[in-house]
Amino acid sequence: MLNGHNVIGFEESAKGQKTFQSFSTIQGSFLQEKFHIATNDEIEAAIAKAVTAFGIYSKVPFVVRAVFLETIAAEIFQLGDVLLERAHLESGLPLARLTGERDRTMNQLKLFAGLLREGSWADAVIDTAMPERQPLPRADIRRILQPLGPVAVFAASNFPFAFSTAGGDTASALAAGCSVIVKAHSAHAGTNELMATAIKRAAEKTGMPDGIFSSLIGEGATLGQQLAANPVIKAIGFTGSYRAGMALYETVTQKRTAPIPLYAEMSSINPVVLLPETLALKTTAIATSLAGSITLGVGQFCTNPGLLFVIKSKATEAFIELMVASLSAVIPATMLNQAICKSYYTDRTKLMNAKGVNLVYKGENLQNEYKGTPALFTVPANEFIASLALQDEVFGPCSLVVICEDKSQLVQALSAMHGQLTGSIYGNEEELIRYTEVVQILQDKTGRVIFNSAPTGVEVCHAMVHGGPFPATTDSRTTSVGTEAIRRFVRPICYQDCPQVLLPLYLQNNNAAGIMRKINGNYTRDAIQ
Amino acid sequence: MLNGHNVIGFEESAKGQKTFQSFSTIQGSFLQEKFHIATNDEIEAAIAKAVTAFGIYSKVPFVVRAVFLETIAAEIFQLGDVLLERAHLESGLPLARLTGERDRTMNQLKLFAGLLREGSWADAVIDTAMPERQPLPRADIRRILQPLGPVAVFAASNFPFAFSTAGGDTASALAAGCSVIVKAHSAHAGTNELMATAIKRAAEKTGMPDGIFSSLIGEGATLGQQLAANPVIKAIGFTGSYRAGMALYETVTQKRTAPIPLYAEMSSINPVVLLPETLALKTTAIATSLAGSITLGVGQFCTNPGLLFVIKSKATEAFIELMVASLSAVIPATMLNQAICKSYYTDRTKLMNAKGVNLVYKGENLQNEYKGTPALFTVPANEFIASLALQDEVFGPCSLVVICEDKSQLVQALSAMHGQLTGSIYGNEEELIRYTEVVQILQDKTGRVIFNSAPTGVEVCHAMVHGGPFPATTDSRTTSVGTEAIRRFVRPICYQDCPQVLLPLYLQNNNAAGIMRKINGNYTRDAIQ
Repeated sequence: MLNGHNVIGFEESAKGQKTFQSFSTIQGSFLQEKFHIATNDEIEAAIAKAVTAFGIYSKVPFVVRAVFLETIAAEIFQLGDVLLERAHLESGLPLARLTGERDRTMNQLKLFAGLLREGSWADAVIDTAMPERQPLPRADIRRILQPLGPVAVFAASNFPFAFSTAGGDTASALAAGCSVIVKAHSAHAGTNELMATAIKRAAEKTGMPDGIFSSLIGEGATLGQQLAANPVIKAIGFTGSYRAGMALYETVTQKRTAPIPLYAEMSSINPVVLLPETLALKTTAIATSLAGSITLGVGQFCTNPGLLFVIKSKATEAFIELMVASLSAVIPATMLNQAICKSYYTDRTKLMNAKGVNLVYKGENLQNEYKGTPALFTVPANEFIASLALQDEVFGPCSLVVICEDKSQLVQALSAMHGQLTGSIYGNEEELIRYTEVVQILQDKTGRVIFNSAPTGVEVCHAMVHGGPFPATTDSRTTSVGTEAIRRFVRPICYQDCPQVLLPLYLQNNNAAGIMRKINGNYTRDAIQ
Repeated sequence: MLNGHNVIGFEESAKGQKTFQSFSTIQGSFLQEKFHIATNDEIEAAIAKAVTAFGIYSKVPFVVRAVFLETIAAEIFQLGDVLLERAHLESGLPLARLTGERDRTMNQLKLFAGLLREGSWADAVIDTAMPERQPLPRADIRRILQPLGPVAVFAASNFPFAFSTAGGDTASALAAGCSVIVKAHSAHAGTNELMATAIKRAAEKTGMPDGIFSSLIGEGATLGQQLAANPVIKAIGFTGSYRAGMALYETVTQKRTAPIPLYAEMSSINPVVLLPETLALKTTAIATSLAGSITLGVGQFCTNPGLLFVIKSKATEAFIELMVASLSAVIPATMLNQAICKSYYTDRTKLMNAKGVNLVYKGENLQNEYKGTPALFTVPANEFIASLALQDEVFGPCSLVVICEDKSQLVQALSAMHGQLTGSIYGNEEELIRYTEVVQILQDKTGRVIFNSAPTGVEVCHAMVHGGPFPATTDSRTTSVGTEAIRRFVRPICYQDCPQVLLPLYLQNNNAAGIMRKINGNYTRDAIQ
């Protein structure tokens, strides 16, 4: 079924002689299929097609884009078990998780389709003419969001569906009206091919232009850098490591003439603050919940809780003991790929040997089986404050408990913390009010503040913010999950005294699509008389 | 009245021994007042105060911010003629223009106050909990825009009021909830001082925190680079030259650990396309209007029309003759400052000597009187296409007519053009429809497409987009004029299962402020029951 080809618009292409194979951490061996690394000609072909396709696709009505996205979801479903089984082999993730992730991926395509059908997302703002105004007449001015251009999407290792080929970046860029070129993740090139061909089929079936979507196979950073430096690429969506994200940032800011937005989601260790009264009252429940969150997906989530803040007490001691009990009971599971597994054990050893860090529990090193075992460390808050290195992400089922002497040291420790995707706090209402300062710090340093639950589990909805201050992302003004993610791939434009017939549908007087607009400062779905 | 001090929150400060004086192109001499360049201590003091003030100000209700902005407008008005006269001496701009610009500056403060009173700008999005949902319950998630942090604003030479100390960047950043540090423009340091003290008085009168606003005096690029590199500065608003803007871009992207948004509005030559039928029918009216636009404010506008695209014809010849008649009748006026005047004559000579460029008209060189005289050149489209240097901005009353052989060469020439703030097109409806491709290029390359009028004159309203693709700005996703400018200084945050009492006012169930919110995908001003 897999042929190892690049998908370049409606063509499948394998001009390159260089190939690679995916390694399966489940099987402990290379999978047989060979994937052809895209040649420069193939990359250029995909880019040229993306430009042409953008010219057409950027102008189709939102409902047409909605049909395309819904058809992609249907085509993904049609892939059936073949998709799930390949992803299982390539990512080591269990089938149940992958089934859920596939459904989420289809649902987020449908959510964007719904957003497009409703239409108001495009932020239409109209100020009508005032020809009689003194001292000067006012022109008719109408503003809307329009797509940026071809977008490059970098597939993530840890979500072979939801943050990869047909994942959130692709869905939101296509919804925005952009063409998309995906750089396949080398760890799940077969999954990518299945997804890419599903998108290709959906594009063909719905009459989309050739080149609206391409998927390229590349080795290491080369392809990524090529895409990022190319002048016709107008935005980048990336989920991955801090190192890879910052390499892209360097390319984007230093190797291009024209700056473009880079949405790199990179590094977050997701602090969880446990306020004393609540921790004392619910020690077992909190320990069980957090141990589950730390080990969920073998800790390979962007929102994995890598930092737990507590204030020294009897309850804290009991909590740590319960955490150890929970963590040690977890059956070791297979990690995503060899590199991640190797880094996990290296990084956790580095953390263990850092100044002030005490080992509480660690499972044995199962690197040879590509399995990740949990680990828990503690560190006194003063040592945490003194060393930024303790904030380096350890990607895997590992967490560091920061033990504070008192509230004031808790505030100090949190203030020393980098930007994060999420910040959780456990406390009852009265306690939270007493610790308002702590809540405020979480608000300043994160994109999502969570009350009384663990950070893993990112709801795909309208209000979600999956983003946050650096180094969590390179651009805190956006989210990569939820419908607002569409804003990453648009820019505003306004039309002054434009004839009706030349205006985009959504700015015309009659408001045929019935979207919510802001007219002379008032929100309305009414037509302009 | 002027004392040459820096305004650091509620303090006036002049610790530095180094001073400078403003040069008046009107008087042809230095003005007597000495301005004290901020010392490192003073810069640090302003920054420290901005951080503290942000902590308080970012949390006040929108209406409180509205009162502050309205009070600034009132204090500016209270400055009376002293402000206008000082700005006249420092900028060379006539009093009538400065009176209009002052009113615009007051009005834009009031417009943002209105936006804040209405409140819906903060994009509140709420997805309520679904505890019974299968397979997993949904949490309550509520999203809102929150201010980024202290903002640095760089005053512009060409708008001593509207794009300077109390101008659009300051107004939108304060409206967003940010504290502001303005780098005064050295050409109008006295005007800056008057404006800064007006803001200071407004802050004191309305009980704003000390440090919500500071204004620092610096020489050349030093102060700007210091502010841009400082880790607590969270965004930058800049209007100025390409060179200065890109120097800031380099600092922001290479000398900081954490990237921040830089909104640099830099370089635009604002193409105007004259379609043949309309040009033939309305030759005189168009020539008069464009000659007026080219020479308005001695051509010192970001939206000055520096490129006119025509298709070779009798009408084109007549048009050029009429332009010469209009331009040569303009009485030479004083330019903003010595440097701008010098650059104008140097740059227009460079353009005149460029390959393929023909001189049509140029007024004499009045550099010794600091006056700018108009100039008009033509170039065949093929030469325009061949040389990017012809797109270098000549800041002053000068324009280049690109003469195309036919429609297809017009399309080619426009396609070779850089990003712009505006693109104008003159044509009747039928003609515009025939030239849809041309309209499309303008849409792709600009932030504002203008039909049948000149680009100068930027309405401050809800729908305005004053922005555009590089090199017009460094970030085409935003506008620096109009209410949407507030979006530059905010980021989204969401709260998961947050107790009502800890939520921002605008996300609480009762919706006391009555703002428009998106609840479970529907727009409503209703409370949540």
